[in-house]
Amino acid sequence: MELLFRNVTVLPMDDTLEERVLRNMCIGIDKGKIAYFGAYEPGENAGRVVEGENLVVIPGLINAHSHIPMILLRGSSNDVPLEEWLFEHIFPREAKLTGEDIHAGSLLGMLEAISTGTTALCDMYMNLDAIASAAEKVGIRLHLTNALTSFDENENLEENRSFLQNRLIREKYRDSCLIKSLNGIHAVYTSYPRAWERVRKEAEENGKPINVHVSETKTEQENCIEKYGTTPLQTLDRYGVLDVGCIAAHCVYLTDEDIELMREKNVTAVHCPTSNLMLASGIADVSKYIKRGVNVALGTDGAASNNSLDMFEEMKLASLLQKGISLDPTAISAYDALKMATVNGAKALRLNSGVIKEGCNADLAVLDFSRIGLTPCYDHVANVVYSANGSDVAMTVIDGKIVYEYGRFACGIDIGKLRKAVEDGKK
Amino acid sequence: MELLFRNVTVLPMDDTLEERVLRNMCIGIDKGKIAYFGAYEPGENAGRVVEGENLVVIPGLINAHSHIPMILLRGSSNDVPLEEWLFEHIFPREAKLTGEDIHAGSLLGMLEAISTGTTALCDMYMNLDAIASAAEKVGIRLHLTNALTSFDENENLEENRSFLQNRLIREKYRDSCLIKSLNGIHAVYTSYPRAWERVRKEAEENGKPINVHVSETKTEQENCIEKYGTTPLQTLDRYGVLDVGCIAAHCVYLTDEDIELMREKNVTAVHCPTSNLMLASGIADVSKYIKRGVNVALGTDGAASNNSLDMFEEMKLASLLQKGISLDPTAISAYDALKMATVNGAKALRLNSGVIKEGCNADLAVLDFSRIGLTPCYDHVANVVYSANGSDVAMTVIDGKIVYEYGRFACGIDIGKLRKAVEDGKK
Repeated sequence: MELLFRNVTVLPMDDTLEERVLRNMCIGIDKGKIAYFGAYEPGENAGRVVEGENLVVIPGLINAHSHIPMILLRGSSNDVPLEEWLFEHIFPREAKLTGEDIHAGSLLGMLEAISTGTTALCDMYMNLDAIASAAEKVGIRLHLTNALTSFDENENLEENRSFLQNRLIREKYRDSCLIKSLNGIHAVYTSYPRAWERVRKEAEENGKPINVHVSETKTEQENCIEKYGTTPLQTLDRYGVLDVGCIAAHCVYLTDEDIELMREKNVTAVHCPTSNLMLASGIADVSKYIKRGVNVALGTDGAASNNSLDMFEEMKLASLLQKGISLDPTAISAYDALKMATVNGAKALRLNSGVIKEGCNADLAVLDFSRIGLTPCYDHVANVVYSANGSDVAMTVIDGKIVYEYGRFACGIDIGKLRKAVEDGKK
Repeated sequence: MELLFRNVTVLPMDDTLEERVLRNMCIGIDKGKIAYFGAYEPGENAGRVVEGENLVVIPGLINAHSHIPMILLRGSSNDVPLEEWLFEHIFPREAKLTGEDIHAGSLLGMLEAISTGTTALCDMYMNLDAIASAAEKVGIRLHLTNALTSFDENENLEENRSFLQNRLIREKYRDSCLIKSLNGIHAVYTSYPRAWERVRKEAEENGKPINVHVSETKTEQENCIEKYGTTPLQTLDRYGVLDVGCIAAHCVYLTDEDIELMREKNVTAVHCPTSNLMLASGIADVSKYIKRGVNVALGTDGAASNNSLDMFEEMKLASLLQKGISLDPTAISAYDALKMATVNGAKALRLNSGVIKEGCNADLAVLDFSRIGLTPCYDHVANVVYSANGSDVAMTVIDGKIVYEYGRFACGIDIGKLRKAVEDGKK
């Protein structure tokens, strides 16, 4: 056994168990998997033992919607209308990003992610090779896609960089258990039916889900209905996009028919509460979606509209917002929010993670409950979701390896040099 | 000169200056005040010099509505309806709190506050002596009141513990520049007109403002209108409560007439966004209040309904919420939010703090901008409000003294022992 957590408190997020919080537990890890989970010490010796009654182990958090390299544009433009944000600030700066920039930004973003307890990302961006190679260095689980955009209805889609880049990653990381490429459509307003059908065909062939932005803004919703006569989700459905496994980011303006369609076709809605507020897109009524049986995961979106990658913030905000808009304090409980960031994210990515049980991926976040801000502890779940932030993470384990531990990263990246590169590379 | 910050970046929050961010600045501190603020090094030697181009100095944050000892009940009850929260969980537990508990809880809460950059609290609770003595040990600025509650209209108000406790603190800390007692009315629904007039008289005599909960919930609003024919604010105004200086916490349901009354009578509204969402009270339309000239400060409320004392979270949420509910990303800017937590809080408490300029109280929070989560930096204000959290605070200065520095507290309190006392004392 490579690694053993002994005498720790565990939030297994496993609804087949009676208890939500288990004390004095052991978690044994071997070959990237949870090899043992129980109250007694396993017979086998462990290469390393980590213990402490103040350590609370939760499944690693899954950031189900990110644009990691946008960390490069953190704080570059806030408090301005969406159009100005996009066309005057984000797009012009993004156009100047080099592969080196994107690699450096990916490293920085991924270090922030693992240091705040995130173990997997569902990412959408360009220049995938620069991103994937960063994930390999950092040791984070990464499912990524270059999402198709095409404004020219006559484009030869076979040459669209989305397919080419996705295939490149799929081929290059064929043997990686951490890095996978998905399929992607940016959104209904940045392409057209023939393109969606082509992505759907690609997904049928490679068996991976399609990642797509859906109903992020009112304008998107209204324009789509005007152009196609149906909502973005229903429009995509007409072209089979929902039939091959679909991860739909944002979903702020779902209609009742959309919600039913999500449930029926098993589409995951990825709620990005901070970004939706920051860009004044609106507030997705996710407690309704969940009640109606839709799988709802959580994401930070890009750091340019967040401006953090701390999934603890998203959990707290997701719960608070639903309570506030529904005037119902039971709308999304702390446990529901933690589930969104673990179990539901894993379901979206078809990952054998998100719970702590034998046979699952050893993707874990370990919190230090001896911190002042987590004292006292009446309810471990409430403290994790409502009191903790990413800085309370003491240790992050991905694929059985400790990638982060009390401020130090296992990858050995020179942080000072990286920070300087990102700072000097500002656009 | 006792303390000199050299070569630091400063966000002075001083609207008389042209620039919002000043680099390579010096701040000299003597006898609790900012004695020098300028680009050149002061001639005088300093007892201690702190420097670093990555240090960003902001005015210390002012938590304008807290119930500090409620840290003892952090996480004790969440995700339940307000009535159940209050009557089944909070009140029964509060009834069991001893003076020792309240002192320990105050210490813990104040340590959390100073370690996350808060330098002043406007607190409302019971057993003031246990709270004030904690503030003295920790070295935090504390304005507190035992807010009057009285359900018996025949009560001899002269013996109400609110007056007695407030006077005790006023007398005992007569010479303290950190600890002041205010006047307080809990809320319109927990007392009656004769009591309000008595508090108003007390305030006229001692010259300190009245701290009161106003329009926190719809039920409060509706019941007050039913009983008195006017909103809580207008009802209090009829008895002169707004004429002696008033700090009104929550203000979720202000009418247009209320807003005008707030402005006219110079009443501060203390916005508590996390608590208002957590308890499903609603969302105060504070961008409207600000536009109409009302002074809006920020508070965490008690940790039982937050469940943190991190004012960085409140700033971010205050800005995000207003953008989200108004669908206007310019509603509350990062600068506006930082102003709420500094300048506006100081105005509410009549403190010579909240800005960085010569002659002001040396109450400062120093952030470490070399953290991954604050890189890159396009805009210091955006990074402070949208990317930072309390854990990015490297140093906190109150009344010219460094009370917190990179995880260590100047007061020398045994944290392990304190944590154990709070944990063992759970009710």
